[in-house]
Amino acid sequence: MSPIFQRLVRFRDDQGLIRYGEAPNDKELVGMQVPIYDGDVPWNLCTSTQKARISEVLCPLPSVPIIYGIGMNYKRHIEEVKLPIPQYPVIFTKPPDSLAGPFEDIPVDSSCENMDYEGELCAIIGTDCKNFIKGTHDPLDYILGYSVGNDVSSRFWQEPPQSGNQHGYAKSFDKFAPIGPVIVSAGAARIKDSIQNGDPDLQLRTLVNGEERQISRTSDLLFGISDILEHLSRGKTLRKGTVIMTGTPGGVAAFMQPPRWLGSGDVVEIEIEGIGKIKNRILI
Amino acid sequence: MSPIFQRLVRFRDDQGLIRYGEAPNDKELVGMQVPIYDGDVPWNLCTSTQKARISEVLCPLPSVPIIYGIGMNYKRHIEEVKLPIPQYPVIFTKPPDSLAGPFEDIPVDSSCENMDYEGELCAIIGTDCKNFIKGTHDPLDYILGYSVGNDVSSRFWQEPPQSGNQHGYAKSFDKFAPIGPVIVSAGAARIKDSIQNGDPDLQLRTLVNGEERQISRTSDLLFGISDILEHLSRGKTLRKGTVIMTGTPGGVAAFMQPPRWLGSGDVVEIEIEGIGKIKNRILI
Repeated sequence: MSPIFQRLVRFRDDQGLIRYGEAPNDKELVGMQVPIYDGDVPWNLCTSTQKARISEVLCPLPSVPIIYGIGMNYKRHIEEVKLPIPQYPVIFTKPPDSLAGPFEDIPVDSSCENMDYEGELCAIIGTDCKNFIKGTHDPLDYILGYSVGNDVSSRFWQEPPQSGNQHGYAKSFDKFAPIGPVIVSAGAARIKDSIQNGDPDLQLRTLVNGEERQISRTSDLLFGISDILEHLSRGKTLRKGTVIMTGTPGGVAAFMQPPRWLGSGDVVEIEIEGIGKIKNRILI
Repeated sequence: MSPIFQRLVRFRDDQGLIRYGEAPNDKELVGMQVPIYDGDVPWNLCTSTQKARISEVLCPLPSVPIIYGIGMNYKRHIEEVKLPIPQYPVIFTKPPDSLAGPFEDIPVDSSCENMDYEGELCAIIGTDCKNFIKGTHDPLDYILGYSVGNDVSSRFWQEPPQSGNQHGYAKSFDKFAPIGPVIVSAGAARIKDSIQNGDPDLQLRTLVNGEERQISRTSDLLFGISDILEHLSRGKTLRKGTVIMTGTPGGVAAFMQPPRWLGSGDVVEIEIEGIGKIKNRILI
């Protein structure tokens, strides 16, 4: 698919209307006047001659059918924690209500001890996809674009005695999946020029209260976008709007000695070059 | 909530129209003329004076936001397989496209070795629910009713080398969650009269090609409906239409010696007294 946008921003304008528009760059968007698109969903927009001023940047997707997460997908991180290399992408889910905006506060349930961040490159499905075959099909026929995400996790709920080893529950609280600030189309120059072995090679950084915690490149993914699409769509229909969080590199709080869990008021910023930055405050 | 129905059937009538109606009993429904309800979703129906003839029984929900499954939830089965008793319900998900009708064939992806059945009592959310507290809140304010489900699973994909220990993937293929044949409201006499410690006490049976494989009572659930609601809605919004598959008793193929996996053409029937029977053919 060839979306009509390069950098799609969803925003509230100064009249209070929710709009889609073209973001000029990856800098501060609030206050900018941008060309708008007509339409409610990012895979079905039309150009317009109008412009509007951004008053608040919203989640680039109004809703999602589901969010898939991939566990243990950064090669250097897998070596670091000395875990066996998975044969297939390790899949868990986050439900639609875990979606949040790129700058929203994240109120945390009081049961959620040991709060952690996971900075991730997100791929967003723009065309329904089933039985994708790596090497035969083109991922760009199905990927609408890329975004930045935080796979917010309560490690307390992820521990086997609480979870029965299932990752999803700990990551499924309301607003535990902020994404944004924009969706950058796969055809945008900044993404296209970075491609290594079929996938974007972009720097990913996570900061907590300004301190760098994660730094890696998306080219270190063990399973790339085509591998993930093949696995997730095997006998399964991936619906447009589905967000795939592709995994997180080393540097999460859980693996620090001792762990440095997020506290109330902590601000987590995740930045991927060429896409932009999300920034969320954790309220416990 | 007090739904207007007792036994809600969704069906195609002899004119090809999709309708909701009141099923008179738990016997064969095709060919019967039944009173119909106006409306598209089961939590928002109006009575009508019309009747229509059932030509095909459909999934009682046209779509779902998500399906939650509960692992290891039958006490006798947990003892049988000598596993530790979980502290909290073990949660996995099945995506919306795993939903199927009560009598639909289930085409299975060729990668899905070691196919298995899991007969389950399903609770269906009819009112959005967040932070439910057992003992304080009434589950019947949120439960629309009960249905019968089969948590179809490929044990090959569930094994740790393929799954990284995450149950969901193996259970998330298209049509791996047939439910039906009806939704019986919690207020229906047959359910109400069976209540033991707050939950329905009903016999559940699974047959494969007519041979009994599972037989248990839903009163053997380790975590009852209120426990599950509390756990699933903790800091999380459970949306109306969500299906909760409450777990399966002993007798699945995986624990037989040797395992007796489902083969192509095998017919799986799951019956819960007072609700009815679903019957699906596996096509591999």
